[in-house]
Amino acid sequence: MPKTQKKNSSALILLSGGQDSATCLAWALNKFTRVSAICFDYGQRHRIELSCAKLIAKATKTPLYIQKIALLSDLTNSALTNDKKRMTEGNEKSLPSTFVPGRNLIFLSTAAIYATKLGITDIVTGVCQTDYSGYPDCRQNFINSLEKTLNLAIEKPFKLHTPLMKLTKAETVKLMLKIKQTPLLKLSHTCYKGTRPACGKCPSCKLRLKGFKEAGIPDPIKYEN
Amino acid sequence: MPKTQKKNSSALILLSGGQDSATCLAWALNKFTRVSAICFDYGQRHRIELSCAKLIAKATKTPLYIQKIALLSDLTNSALTNDKKRMTEGNEKSLPSTFVPGRNLIFLSTAAIYATKLGITDIVTGVCQTDYSGYPDCRQNFINSLEKTLNLAIEKPFKLHTPLMKLTKAETVKLMLKIKQTPLLKLSHTCYKGTRPACGKCPSCKLRLKGFKEAGIPDPIKYEN
Repeated sequence: MPKTQKKNSSALILLSGGQDSATCLAWALNKFTRVSAICFDYGQRHRIELSCAKLIAKATKTPLYIQKIALLSDLTNSALTNDKKRMTEGNEKSLPSTFVPGRNLIFLSTAAIYATKLGITDIVTGVCQTDYSGYPDCRQNFINSLEKTLNLAIEKPFKLHTPLMKLTKAETVKLMLKIKQTPLLKLSHTCYKGTRPACGKCPSCKLRLKGFKEAGIPDPIKYEN
Repeated sequence: MPKTQKKNSSALILLSGGQDSATCLAWALNKFTRVSAICFDYGQRHRIELSCAKLIAKATKTPLYIQKIALLSDLTNSALTNDKKRMTEGNEKSLPSTFVPGRNLIFLSTAAIYATKLGITDIVTGVCQTDYSGYPDCRQNFINSLEKTLNLAIEKPFKLHTPLMKLTKAETVKLMLKIKQTPLLKLSHTCYKGTRPACGKCPSCKLRLKGFKEAGIPDPIKYEN
């Protein structure tokens, strides 16, 4: 794909170390002249993501800033930050137990504050409402509303880019094939349990495996069994 | 003023320990059956506010939760968190040096997450666009946009109350007179320099003094000279 953005353009990407944000980084490197990354240490159970984020940033020569955010584990009781809580999938009546209320709200708001410091107004995030896990803060209507709120709060013309919003996991894999960045996926982590090899059984692993299967290429990371 | 809200109503108030939030707390106690408070320790230079918040909470028997937020001082270089930076007032060309980009965005988002934990959807904040210091995140259009964003992010019908939004500082003082809570103002702190007695010279002190003068009552706190 040709670089489509204007010359000398900069973007900040929210890099978690997972498959989606690794894909977004590859997308951003293809679209913008300069890309910086921010990663959040919020007490997540799957802390292995942080080291994956570092590896991915290093492999792509992307400057990475890690911001510690204690308030999410202080204030919420999600299976993502509390390893005593069982992981359950969401249904029509309730959100999944991995939902951290306000997580993307805090992450994107913090990213906008960091972007202000860097003089950047383009922010890229890997949220996705297709294949979505029931998280309300992964939907496009939330992103649109937040974009407007950020602009009013900081008086900068922020643009929130969500290249994966309408893609299935298989299409996300195919996007990496198209921009020839699939080796980067070997460095990414997805498993909610934070084990390596990945468990292959949690909702996140299942979604990832399904995506690679449908895209017709093998997942380069290792799984138990 | 009669209690106007429905029975068994609860609200969460953002209590900084300043004059405006003390007034909002009095307003909320008059309107809601149960009021809880949240206060932020974000590395502010005027840390004396935190002890004022505790005194005000104690005096009104309001449960107070203090949340530490490091990210604002990590990411911004405002005169409010950096005591080496000179305080300058804003003008048509630039924001005041005390502006912490995204501060109310982070505070209100965090309050919404805490409110979710408490089962509360009414949130009260003392932001004010009259007499305003040039902060974009004190305006009603920001509050309206954020309210919508919070509802989409967490899927709760949050209502952000801003009782002081259209009041001058004099009208804020008169509001306390009306609900017979002026003694509470003796416990509040306003000075940006964080000194006690208050400096009387910083933009915040000047605004407070002007308000009391126009309301025709003496300010119960002590000032230098």
